[in-house]
Amino acid sequence: MRDPFAVSAAEAQHLAETFGTPLYVVDESHLREKIRAYIDGFASVYPHTEISFASKANSTLAVLQIAADEGCTIDTASEGELEAALRAGVPAARCHLHGNNKTLAELERAAKEGVGQIVVDNFEEIERLGAMGKVPDLLLRLAPGVDPKTHGKISTGQADTKFGFNIADGSAERALLRALELGLPVVGFHCHVGSQLLDPEAQRSGGALITDFALRMRREHGFTAKIINVGGGLGVRYQPGDQPMPIPDYCRLVVEAVRESLQGEWEPTLVQEPGRSLVAESGITLYTVGVVKTVPAGEGQRTYVAVDGGLSDNPRPALYGSKYPVSALPQDGRTMAGTRPMRVSGKHCETDMLFDMVDLPGDIRPGDFVQVQCTGAYNSSMASQYNRYARPATVIRRANGQFELVQRRDTFDEMFARESLISL
Amino acid sequence: MRDPFAVSAAEAQHLAETFGTPLYVVDESHLREKIRAYIDGFASVYPHTEISFASKANSTLAVLQIAADEGCTIDTASEGELEAALRAGVPAARCHLHGNNKTLAELERAAKEGVGQIVVDNFEEIERLGAMGKVPDLLLRLAPGVDPKTHGKISTGQADTKFGFNIADGSAERALLRALELGLPVVGFHCHVGSQLLDPEAQRSGGALITDFALRMRREHGFTAKIINVGGGLGVRYQPGDQPMPIPDYCRLVVEAVRESLQGEWEPTLVQEPGRSLVAESGITLYTVGVVKTVPAGEGQRTYVAVDGGLSDNPRPALYGSKYPVSALPQDGRTMAGTRPMRVSGKHCETDMLFDMVDLPGDIRPGDFVQVQCTGAYNSSMASQYNRYARPATVIRRANGQFELVQRRDTFDEMFARESLISL
Repeated sequence: MRDPFAVSAAEAQHLAETFGTPLYVVDESHLREKIRAYIDGFASVYPHTEISFASKANSTLAVLQIAADEGCTIDTASEGELEAALRAGVPAARCHLHGNNKTLAELERAAKEGVGQIVVDNFEEIERLGAMGKVPDLLLRLAPGVDPKTHGKISTGQADTKFGFNIADGSAERALLRALELGLPVVGFHCHVGSQLLDPEAQRSGGALITDFALRMRREHGFTAKIINVGGGLGVRYQPGDQPMPIPDYCRLVVEAVRESLQGEWEPTLVQEPGRSLVAESGITLYTVGVVKTVPAGEGQRTYVAVDGGLSDNPRPALYGSKYPVSALPQDGRTMAGTRPMRVSGKHCETDMLFDMVDLPGDIRPGDFVQVQCTGAYNSSMASQYNRYARPATVIRRANGQFELVQRRDTFDEMFARESLISL
Repeated sequence: MRDPFAVSAAEAQHLAETFGTPLYVVDESHLREKIRAYIDGFASVYPHTEISFASKANSTLAVLQIAADEGCTIDTASEGELEAALRAGVPAARCHLHGNNKTLAELERAAKEGVGQIVVDNFEEIERLGAMGKVPDLLLRLAPGVDPKTHGKISTGQADTKFGFNIADGSAERALLRALELGLPVVGFHCHVGSQLLDPEAQRSGGALITDFALRMRREHGFTAKIINVGGGLGVRYQPGDQPMPIPDYCRLVVEAVRESLQGEWEPTLVQEPGRSLVAESGITLYTVGVVKTVPAGEGQRTYVAVDGGLSDNPRPALYGSKYPVSALPQDGRTMAGTRPMRVSGKHCETDMLFDMVDLPGDIRPGDFVQVQCTGAYNSSMASQYNRYARPATVIRRANGQFELVQRRDTFDEMFARESLISL
C-alpha cells in the first residue's frame, strides 16, 4: 500500500512562495490509485459493483472531477453537495442524495435534476415522496443495529441513531411496505455503520444484516432488491498504530458477507461509499511556523510551535481528539536537528491545540514548514472562517508533478459580502 | 438580571416565513443593556475604565456597530477581525489587535491603520515590531500562571499556554526590558485567564498577579503601566445551574483585586474584554423541525427531533459538549403538550447530536420550531459550510421590535466562487 502523500522540502518552499500557507494539497495520482484499488478490488470479487465517493469528505470540485473521471458515482448528503457534483460536471444520474432530514425543496431539486437515487431515511420522507410526482429510484436506509468500534460521533449504524429505519423493531419492513403501497420506485437498501473503522467486523455484520433483511423481503413480500449499498467506513493511517485492512481484502470481506446472506438467490448490484478512505491519505496541509516558544509546564517545560492555521482549517483535533502524522520541513534546505516532543498550536484566540506531543526538530524556527499528512478528508469540507481567517486555498498536484490552484483563499470582500450595516 | 433573550411563537412564525431557518437572531436592546451594565458597573467603581468587546465572540458587523455605539472599543484577534471592525465604521484607534502568532503583514496592517494598541504575545513579535518603523501603543500579554475552573480548551491563563509571557520564569520582565531597549511604546499589560468563568476567583488572581507585576516593574525599572487589561471571561447562563456573578459585582471584584495590588501608587486605566458575556445571552438560533423519529435505545426508546441545522451553525456541542436552553414553539399557535426528554439532532452526515436529553413537548412535529437560547456568541463566528450548507442569516431585533436582516445566507454562487475546474 502506497504511503500517505507528502511533499518534499523543495516542493513546500515552492508551494508556500506561490500559493501561501496554510495550504491544502491533494495529489492526483495518489487519489486515482486509491480509487482504482477500490474499483478494481471490488470488481474482482463480484460481477456488479459500484464505488460511490462520499463527497462530504472532500467536495472540492476538482476532487469530484477526479473521482467521477475514475468511474465513481457521487454520494451527496445535501442539496449543496449535489450542487457541487453538478458543477463538477457529474451527470445527476450518477449522483445519490442522502440525508436524515431532507427538506421538501431538497427532494424536489433532486427529482428535477434526475439524480440516480435518493436514499430515504424516515417515514416523513416516504410520505413527502409519495405526495410528489415522478421521483428518482429510491434506496431505504436501514439501521442494522451494529455498534462499531470507532469514535462515538462518527458511529452511525447502531440501533440508537438518527439515521434510517430500524430493522429489529419492524420499522424497516413497514417502511418498505408503505413505500411500495404508495407506488414509490424502491430499488434496494442502504446502510452505513460508521467511519474510520479499523476493525472491519462491524462493516461485515452491517452488510450481512441488511442482506438478510433483503432476502427476507424477497421471500416474504416478493420484493427483490436490485441494489445493496453497504456504505463506507474503512479507516486510514492517521497514526502509526492505525493499520486498516488493505482495500482489496476489505472488498473481499464485504462481498463474502453479503454473498453468504444472499444464499445464491439473486445477484444485486453491490455499492460501497468510501469517502475518507479514498481521499484522506492523498492530501496534506502545509503550514508556516510563526512562533516557537518554550514555557514552564508542571515540573518541566513545553515547547509550543505556533503555525498559521488551526481550528478553522482543521477542526478534527478539537472535535474528535484526532491525531495526524506531523513533520517539519526546513525553509532553507538545511538538515534539521534531531527531534523532541512539542505541541503544535494554531493562531486562534482560544487554546486551539492542533497536535500534542509530536516529534519535531530541536532547531525548528519561524519560517520553517509544518506538514500534516492525511488531511485530504474532513478538513477543507469542515473549514470555517473563525476569527475571520480566510479559508485556505487548495492545490492539486497533477499527475505530471505540476501544482494547480483549484480553490483560492477567501477574500475580505467575499467574507463580508453577506452583511449590511444598520442605521443607528 | 434580565433573562436570556427569546422570541415568541408569533415572532418565530414571522421570522421563519420572512427569513427562513436556521436563523440567528440578536436582540439589540438586550445587547445594549448588557454592555451598559458592564460600562456603568465598571465606571462606578473606578475612575478610568474601558470595556473592549471581544469580537471573536460575534463579529457580525451590525453587532460591532452596536458595541461601538455604546462606547466599547473592539478587541480583534486577527487582521480579519480588524477588517470587520473597520467595515463596521469603528475608528482604528478604537481597536486593539491580539494574536499569539501575528504575521509581519498583520502587524504592518495594524500599524498602517493606526490601531489603538497591539497586544504583544512573544519575543519574536517584539523583534518584528522593533524592526518596523512607527508602531502603535503596545501592551504585553502576560501568562500569570492561573488555572481557571473552565473547559480546558478555553482556559488560557495558566503557565503552560501558548499565550503571552510567563511571569514566574522571568520571561515577562525580559520582554518588557527588551521592548523598552528597542524603544517600543509599551503602555501596559494584559492577561486573559479563560472563558465561561462561573467562579471568578481565577479572574481575581489573574488581575492581582499582573498588577503585582506592574508594581514591581514600576519599582524596579521605573516603568509605569498606563493601562492594565484584565481580559474577559465572565460566564453566561447556558444551563440552569450556571449562575454567573452579576456584572456590577464582577466589576467590583476585578477592581478590588487590582486596586489592592496597586497599593495606591498610581491609577492606570483598567480595561476588561468581555465577549461571550456581552453577546451570548442576547442571541438565539431558530430551527425548523423536519423529522421526529422514535427508535429503540437500550431497553427503552429514544425520540430524535431533527432540525434544519447542526454542527455547521453551532459546533460548540461537538467541540466542548456545550449545553444550551432549548425549547419548542408551535408552528400553528396551538398549546403544545407536556414535555419529555428528547435528543435534538442536526442535518449533517455524521452523528451530529446537538442537544441531548432536552425536554420537548410530546406532540412536537415537523414544521414546529426549536429555539436555542444563548447562541449570540461563538455560533455565527464559528459557522462552517460543512456538507455544503449555507451559513444561516442573522437578523437584528431592533429596539422598536422590528426585525432587520444584517447577514444573509450564503448563495451557491458564493459558495463555489473560489473554485475552478481542472482539465482532465
